Amino acid sequence: MATFIEPRILKGFRDFLPPAEIPRRNLLERIEHRFRSYGFVPIDTPALEYAEILLGKGGGETEKQIYRFNDQGGRDVALRFDLTVPFARFVAEHRAELSLPFKRYHIAKVWRGENTQRGRYREFTQCDFDILGSDRAAADFEILLIMRNTLLDLGAGEVSIRVNHRGLFNRFLSRLGVLEHSVEILRIVDKLVKIGREETRRLLADLLGPRSEDVLRFIATQGSFEETLASLTEAVGGDAPEVQRLAQLRGFMVDTGTADSFVLDPSITRGLDYYTGVVYETFLKDLPDMGSVCSGGRYDNLVGVYSKERISGVGSSIGLDRLIAALEVLGRLDTRASYAQVVIACIQSEAAGRYQALAGKFREAGIPCEVFLEGEKLTKQFMRAEKQGIRWLVIPGEDIQRGPFTLRDLGTRTNQEGLSPEQIIARIQGT
Amino acid sequence: MATFIEPRILKGFRDFLPPAEIPRRNLLERIEHRFRSYGFVPIDTPALEYAEILLGKGGGETEKQIYRFNDQGGRDVALRFDLTVPFARFVAEHRAELSLPFKRYHIAKVWRGENTQRGRYREFTQCDFDILGSDRAAADFEILLIMRNTLLDLGAGEVSIRVNHRGLFNRFLSRLGVLEHSVEILRIVDKLVKIGREETRRLLADLLGPRSEDVLRFIATQGSFEETLASLTEAVGGDAPEVQRLAQLRGFMVDTGTADSFVLDPSITRGLDYYTGVVYETFLKDLPDMGSVCSGGRYDNLVGVYSKERISGVGSSIGLDRLIAALEVLGRLDTRASYAQVVIACIQSEAAGRYQALAGKFREAGIPCEVFLEGEKLTKQFMRAEKQGIRWLVIPGEDIQRGPFTLRDLGTRTNQEGLSPEQIIARIQGT
Repeated sequence: MATFIEPRILKGFRDFLPPAEIPRRNLLERIEHRFRSYGFVPIDTPALEYAEILLGKGGGETEKQIYRFNDQGGRDVALRFDLTVPFARFVAEHRAELSLPFKRYHIAKVWRGENTQRGRYREFTQCDFDILGSDRAAADFEILLIMRNTLLDLGAGEVSIRVNHRGLFNRFLSRLGVLEHSVEILRIVDKLVKIGREETRRLLADLLGPRSEDVLRFIATQGSFEETLASLTEAVGGDAPEVQRLAQLRGFMVDTGTADSFVLDPSITRGLDYYTGVVYETFLKDLPDMGSVCSGGRYDNLVGVYSKERISGVGSSIGLDRLIAALEVLGRLDTRASYAQVVIACIQSEAAGRYQALAGKFREAGIPCEVFLEGEKLTKQFMRAEKQGIRWLVIPGEDIQRGPFTLRDLGTRTNQEGLSPEQIIARIQGT
Repeated sequence: MATFIEPRILKGFRDFLPPAEIPRRNLLERIEHRFRSYGFVPIDTPALEYAEILLGKGGGETEKQIYRFNDQGGRDVALRFDLTVPFARFVAEHRAELSLPFKRYHIAKVWRGENTQRGRYREFTQCDFDILGSDRAAADFEILLIMRNTLLDLGAGEVSIRVNHRGLFNRFLSRLGVLEHSVEILRIVDKLVKIGREETRRLLADLLGPRSEDVLRFIATQGSFEETLASLTEAVGGDAPEVQRLAQLRGFMVDTGTADSFVLDPSITRGLDYYTGVVYETFLKDLPDMGSVCSGGRYDNLVGVYSKERISGVGSSIGLDRLIAALEVLGRLDTRASYAQVVIACIQSEAAGRYQALAGKFREAGIPCEVFLEGEKLTKQFMRAEKQGIRWLVIPGEDIQRGPFTLRDLGTRTNQEGLSPEQIIARIQGT
């Protein structure tokens, strides 16, 4: 007896069947279309790089999760675990070919050997977009505007983009005399939503003693953007460059009629060390508990590991998996099982050439058209088309090229007879 | 002194800067658009799989080239080296969810530790499309038609798709009494173009003795499709199912007016073992020496390694890198450096919000619009836009939202003054 290899995939990895892959690609295409409409350009980098490059100065969490091995030539290599580190290497390597500011996007897969029990995937797609080489508020704002408009365009409903400024937070910590604990404080506050207010209070108290109450008060500041900004300004001892930056961004929000989408929230800190300026997370108003679907911020030095040049920038990343999960919950995911709008039924398989010639007329008119290959019973072909979500089915007559044809509307289950190809095109395009 | 990590990538891997990535994505989008217009649907599979799955019964060449390692959990894993093996595993695993015939495409990266001295890449993109679960000539033909029409659509000029039938070849070898050497003969003949006629003669003579001359005569058969088919029919001793299949395909070619794109060429055998029916390679008439840019064939059992079910199919794969190289040589590669059609010049960086509001009007009209962020001298901004290949530049006036504006045509280097946003949209869309 023959033995077979059991078909299976690795834990944390996924197959995408057409009903999952079609909406995924639709979303990615709309995201990409939006990036391009702002003049952003795509890049790509290798999935596999020298481990030394990807690990940089080394990071505990990263080192544990990265897929790392020796290749055939004995080189120490690894799969990229994000798109930021490869982008930094890319910029350092191609600096002479890039003109700054450089507005780029990068949509690609990354790999992390994460604990899958938390519902995490080990292979997932990242959608990063950054403006490199501009310190201006105009650059910060363009990223925020793209985040807002892209998410609205995807049908996820209204968004709440929660903005903060790391420099402002640090200015406050400095005034409080605890700036040396900045990294730990930022990390604790970043986990606020996950661990809850009491645990945050306990951790901060362990670290800072009674001054922890001031930090808790600072991050709990609420109100309109303007009110919160006024409170924070007071908390840092008056006007400061970070206050001006936030005020300028607020002006841009008002100018573009997008003010309602943004909240100033001093509890937003982001976990990653390299952020130095504005930081933000995005929540769906219809599904706030889902967590952030798009986050980012300003960093003052992207390429420091590879070059002495300092290049600052600002960027963001869309969490595609979480966004798809949200759209699914909200019932707003486009779930077509086919791209075809019309199908030619197969009456006799030997007529395939003439069926294809007929289908060519529809395709030329911009109508995706499938040709069925098997001469099954018509009722079976109707069912097949319906299952694929195709609305129209053409039943060829005696003269396959010129017609007349019968057009079946699988939505209403009615036939219209005696049509020419041109009439069929008009009928389909008119709906 | 700080030490830096030298930014570099692995040999055989590539960075894609925007001037390379934009045309690459454009091609992929056109290919995908074409696949969809025939009702083909996308799937995706993991980059990383169990090595056992990818290696199947094991193959010498593959085993040497595959990127294989132990992951954090000690699993023996590998990066996919093609899209055919993962497709076979996918079909066996999801058989119950798939309705046959299944027309799918898969565009994704694959990795092979190839010898880079032959100008090969270790990471490259494959574009596979297959019809699974149909034995019909109609399925063979649909793949051939898609190959032809997709390549024509990409601007590569006229194509010559060289078709053969492995079963016909084997029938001939059987008649000659050398069928037991079929695999070796097919492999030698497959290398004909690479090694030349004399070396082919020598290798076949070593294997077959004087009967090698009959093989050489068979594979050298030339003429119109019909003439060649007549000669081959004679060589195999008269009518046979494979002859009928080729005649049927020829009929479909005539019916669709595509006959000129196809040649019957008995020297086409394809190197891969799993092909059993029609096989084909595609050459550009303007660049025949480039080699095949799209190849494939019919196989009678895709999933045999994983399941006892026999599922036949037919498919093809576009060689994207070779195609891009060809289009580049022919000067037909779309080499835009930006997707933006118009850019808003920056007169004062503090007006960024109002610039974005103005840009929003263009974007809403379907015109990709970049906003410059730095208030540089206008001549510098002209140069920047020209370098990006953007034709139009809007110079904002006093009232940034309503205008009037000056529109600069960077092609003719002329200005038109006093325009409203609507007039600018009409001007850009009219060109």
